Amino acid sequence: MKARVTITPKRAVLDPQGKAVQNALEHMGYSGIAAVHVGKYLEIEFASGDTPQIRQKLDEACRRILSNPVIEDYSLVIDES
Amino acid sequence: MKARVTITPKRAVLDPQGKAVQNALEHMGYSGIAAVHVGKYLEIEFASGDTPQIRQKLDEACRRILSNPVIEDYSLVIDES
Repeated sequence: MKARVTITPKRAVLDPQGKAVQNALEHMGYSGIAAVHVGKYLEIEFASGDTPQIRQKLDEACRRILSNPVIEDYSLVIDES
Repeated sequence: MKARVTITPKRAVLDPQGKAVQNALEHMGYSGIAAVHVGKYLEIEFASGDTPQIRQKLDEACRRILSNPVIEDYSLVIDES
């Protein structure tokens, strides 16, 4: 089982890293960009299969450890395999 | 138009950040984790719609600027809207 976690800054929060990437891209000739948001991506592989218990613990870990819920949103996608 | 870019370390490359997250999760009582990989996530918003030209420039930007193709893989997903 594999979980994919995407953590992005909330829209209301300043994203200086995204702004820096946007400026760099424009500076290098890539025009027409309205906004860039930079976040984190985690792939977590589990030895066991998908269970409601693992899913619940993973959601808790995302909220408590992997993201900062004050300034970040996360999305959790679980791949069955 | 919005493009979502996910940049992950290649499997053959050491991922100390992923290992650190794995150790931290195990230390905090989340067991059964086989591996963690940490990457970057970018959302790029365009003022204009999707065109083959933008798509090609974006792919080039991913390869040349946003990722390091020696040690990283990237995946590019374009949301039509």
